Amino acid sequence: MSPTPLDPGRLNRYVDDNRSYFENTLAAMVEVPTVSSDPAHRTDIERGADLACQLLTDAGARAEKVATKGNPVVIGEFSPDRSRPTVTIYNHMDVQPADPTEWRTREPFKFHREDGRYGGRGTTDDKGPGLTAMMAARYAAQNGIPLNIRFVWEFEEEIGSPSFEGFLAGRGTAMPTDSVLVSDTIWIARGKPAVPYGLRGLQGALLTLETGTKDVHSGTTGGVARNPIGEMAEVISRCYDARTGRAKIPGFYDDVKKPKLAELRSFQRSGFSLKSFKAAHELKSLRRLSEKEAVQRLWSMPTFEVHGIKGGYQGPGIKTIVPARAEAKISMRLVPGMNPAKMVSLLRKFVKKINPDVVVTGEHPLEAYLGEFTGPYADAARDALKFGFGAPPAFIREGGSIGAVLSMRRHWNCPLVMMGLSLPEHGYHCPDENYDWGQASGGIKSFVKYFEKIAEIR
Amino acid sequence: MSPTPLDPGRLNRYVDDNRSYFENTLAAMVEVPTVSSDPAHRTDIERGADLACQLLTDAGARAEKVATKGNPVVIGEFSPDRSRPTVTIYNHMDVQPADPTEWRTREPFKFHREDGRYGGRGTTDDKGPGLTAMMAARYAAQNGIPLNIRFVWEFEEEIGSPSFEGFLAGRGTAMPTDSVLVSDTIWIARGKPAVPYGLRGLQGALLTLETGTKDVHSGTTGGVARNPIGEMAEVISRCYDARTGRAKIPGFYDDVKKPKLAELRSFQRSGFSLKSFKAAHELKSLRRLSEKEAVQRLWSMPTFEVHGIKGGYQGPGIKTIVPARAEAKISMRLVPGMNPAKMVSLLRKFVKKINPDVVVTGEHPLEAYLGEFTGPYADAARDALKFGFGAPPAFIREGGSIGAVLSMRRHWNCPLVMMGLSLPEHGYHCPDENYDWGQASGGIKSFVKYFEKIAEIR
Repeated sequence: MSPTPLDPGRLNRYVDDNRSYFENTLAAMVEVPTVSSDPAHRTDIERGADLACQLLTDAGARAEKVATKGNPVVIGEFSPDRSRPTVTIYNHMDVQPADPTEWRTREPFKFHREDGRYGGRGTTDDKGPGLTAMMAARYAAQNGIPLNIRFVWEFEEEIGSPSFEGFLAGRGTAMPTDSVLVSDTIWIARGKPAVPYGLRGLQGALLTLETGTKDVHSGTTGGVARNPIGEMAEVISRCYDARTGRAKIPGFYDDVKKPKLAELRSFQRSGFSLKSFKAAHELKSLRRLSEKEAVQRLWSMPTFEVHGIKGGYQGPGIKTIVPARAEAKISMRLVPGMNPAKMVSLLRKFVKKINPDVVVTGEHPLEAYLGEFTGPYADAARDALKFGFGAPPAFIREGGSIGAVLSMRRHWNCPLVMMGLSLPEHGYHCPDENYDWGQASGGIKSFVKYFEKIAEIR
Repeated sequence: MSPTPLDPGRLNRYVDDNRSYFENTLAAMVEVPTVSSDPAHRTDIERGADLACQLLTDAGARAEKVATKGNPVVIGEFSPDRSRPTVTIYNHMDVQPADPTEWRTREPFKFHREDGRYGGRGTTDDKGPGLTAMMAARYAAQNGIPLNIRFVWEFEEEIGSPSFEGFLAGRGTAMPTDSVLVSDTIWIARGKPAVPYGLRGLQGALLTLETGTKDVHSGTTGGVARNPIGEMAEVISRCYDARTGRAKIPGFYDDVKKPKLAELRSFQRSGFSLKSFKAAHELKSLRRLSEKEAVQRLWSMPTFEVHGIKGGYQGPGIKTIVPARAEAKISMRLVPGMNPAKMVSLLRKFVKKINPDVVVTGEHPLEAYLGEFTGPYADAARDALKFGFGAPPAFIREGGSIGAVLSMRRHWNCPLVMMGLSLPEHGYHCPDENYDWGQASGGIKSFVKYFEKIAEIR
C-alpha cells in the first residue's frame, strides 16, 4: 500500500499544466548540439551538461556535473531519504550527428513544435524521454511517493559509453540503488508499448585499402594499376550476402545463443507488422522474410552491415581516374553469446585472407544484454503502461544497443527495466527526428504509476 | 627542300628569349579554371576562351571564338596562303576538376613556377603543350616556313567533346586541312618520346541503388532493411575481378580486335618499364603482370573500372545506420572493335540480372581510335623529336581517349599525328599536375622541325 495513493485527477492536472514547461525545457536541451561522435562539439557537450544541471536544479533536485576521462555525467536526486527504496533513472543527453541537407527543416538543432509534435535532433533519442521521466520524478517528489529518485544522464551513449564504466567504478560506487529505469527504447507502434529485456551488442570496424598515393589517370594506368574500390567491393561481398544479410565470415554464428521458446512466443504476440515497420522507416523494400523471421532477425540475430563507403570521385559527372584509396565502415550487431573482440578477430582474419592489404581497425565494442521479463518490476512496468496508455506492453528484445545497460547491471547488480517512449516513426538516428506530446504526457503518467508501484517493493 | 632552311642557332635564341613570354602566357591560362565537367565553371570557360583568342591575336594570328551548342571552340590561323599546305593543330583548353585538399600547394588554379617546373591544373593537360605548339607556329610564321598553320582549341575535351562534331560539321567544313597535329599524349618516360597512333575509347556508367528514403537505425532495422552499399558491392564484384582486372560481364571481350604482331613488337621496344611506371604514378603496388602483359593491357585491352563510390556515413567515427542509397561511378576503356552503346547495353543487362533495382545510366560514350604509324608524317614526327630531344619516338598506342581525334579523322579524312609532350610524372588528371621547361623548350624545337618537314610533303 502506498502511503499517499495516486490521485489521477491531480496527476492529469499536473500533466496539462506543465506542458509548456516540458516543451520549453526540451527546446532548450535540443538547441545545444551535444553530438558526442564529433570532437568539434566538445564545448557543446559541456554546455549541454551545465544546462542539464540547471534544469534538474530548477525542478527541485540536487544536481552535479561529474567529470570522467571523457564527457561528463550529470547526476541528480529528489528527496534523498535513506529509509526509502531508491530507483536510478538512466538517460543520455548526447545525440547522433545530423546532416542539415538531409533534414526537411534544414535545422536539426532548432526545436520545432507543431500540433503536439516536436522536431529536432535528440527529441526522441533521448532528451524527450529523459525529460519525460524527470517530469514524473518531480511529481512523485512533490506528492510524497516514498522513493528516492536519482538521475544519471550520460553524454557518451551514442559513441558506446567509453567513460561510463569509469564513472560507475568511481562516483557510482557511492550510489547504490534498488533498481534502474532506462527510457531509451522504441515501441512496436503507436498504441503498442514494448518493454525490452534484451539488447543487441555492437562491434564496429573500419576497413581501409590504399593502393597508391593519389588518384591516377584511368587511361594511362587503367588495366595495370590496382583499383581499391573494386577490391573493397570484393571484400565486402565475400564477407556477407547483402541480399539475405547472411554473414559468410567463418565462425560468425558459432556463439549465437538462440532465444527460448517462451521468448519467441512473446516476440510473435508483440504486434510487430512488416507493413507498418516498412512504412515507419520509409523503406522502399525489405529483405524477403516472413513476420516471424523478421522479429527473430531484429531482436535475436547478429548482423553484418556497411554503414558507409567512400572512394574516388564523388562530384558531378565523370572523372576518369583510378582512385588511390577506399574505405568501408562496417558495423556488426551482436546477440547474447557473442564476444565483440572475437568478432573483430574473425573479421580481420577473414579479410586478410581475401586481401592482405586491407587494414581492419576495430571500434566501439559492446556486448549484447539479456535481462528478465518476469518479476515485480516487470509487473510494475505492465501496470504503469496500462495506466498511462491504456495498453499493456509486449516483452521483447530490442535490436539496438545501450552500452550503459550492461555496465549498470554489472556494477549495481539489481533489476533493470527498459521502459521507452519512442515510436518507430520518431526517426531514431535519422533525419527529421521527432517526439510528441502524446508519448510525453502518457509517459509522465506511466512513470508516476511505475514509481508508486516500485515504492511498494521490499 | 625548304625555301628558308631551318637555322638552329636562330631557333635556339628564339626559345631562350621567349621563356618568360611562354611562362606568363601559361600562367594566365592556368589561372582561369576552365573545368568543363562542372556547370559552375561555365563563365570561366567563356573567360578562358576569350583569353585564348587574345593570346593568339597577341602572337600575330587571326583568332575567333566559335560558338557551339556547348562550350565554344577557339580557332586561329597564321599567314593564310592557300597555295601552301595546311596543318591544323588541335589542343584542348578545358581541364579536369581539382580538389584543393588533395594538392600539396592547396591552390590548383594558382600557377607555380620553380626551377623550370610549372605547377597547376592544366599545365600538362593540355594548356602547356598547346602553348608550346603555338610558340613553334609563331616562329614558323615569323621565319617563312611555307605552311598554313591553324589552331583548333577545344573546351570540352575532358567531358568527351559532346559539341565538337557539331563544330566540325558547321564551321569545320570551311576549314579543310592536309594534316592534323594533336599534342595531348604522354611519353614513356623522360628522354623516351612516344608517338601514339591509337587511343582507347571510353564508356561511363552511373549505378545507383535506393532501398529507402533516408538513413535508418541499424539496431532497429538491421537484419530486415536492405543494405544498398552491400548490394552495390556484390554488383561490382560480379561485374569484374578487381584483383586481375578481368571483366566478368558476358560478351565483354567478344569484339576486341587484337593488335598486329608488328604493333606488339613496337610496344615491347618502346622502353616501357613497370618500375618507372609505378614510380611515376606513385602507386604502392600493381596488378601482377609482366612488362609485356602490362603494355598490352594499357594500350590494347579494355578495362572495367570503378572511379568513385559513395553511400552512407562518411564522417569521423561510427554512425549506426543502414543507408538508403549507394552510388558507383563506372568507366570502361574500350579498344578497337568495341561499340560503346553495346557495352552499356551488356553492362545494364548483366546488372539487372544481378539486381533489378540498380539503375544504370550510360554516359560519355567514345569509340577507340586506330591510325597509322608509317608514312611521311610519321617520318616527319620521328625526325622532329630526334631534332628537339635527341631521341627517336616509340610508335605505340595510348591508353587514354581523345574524342576529338576520331571526329577530326572522320571529317577531315587526312593524316593525323599525335606528338605529345607530357611525362608520366606530370600527373595527368591528378593532384599536383605539372609541366616543365625541358619539355616545352624541346617541344618548340621539335614542332618547328616538324613544320619544316611537313611543308615539303606534296
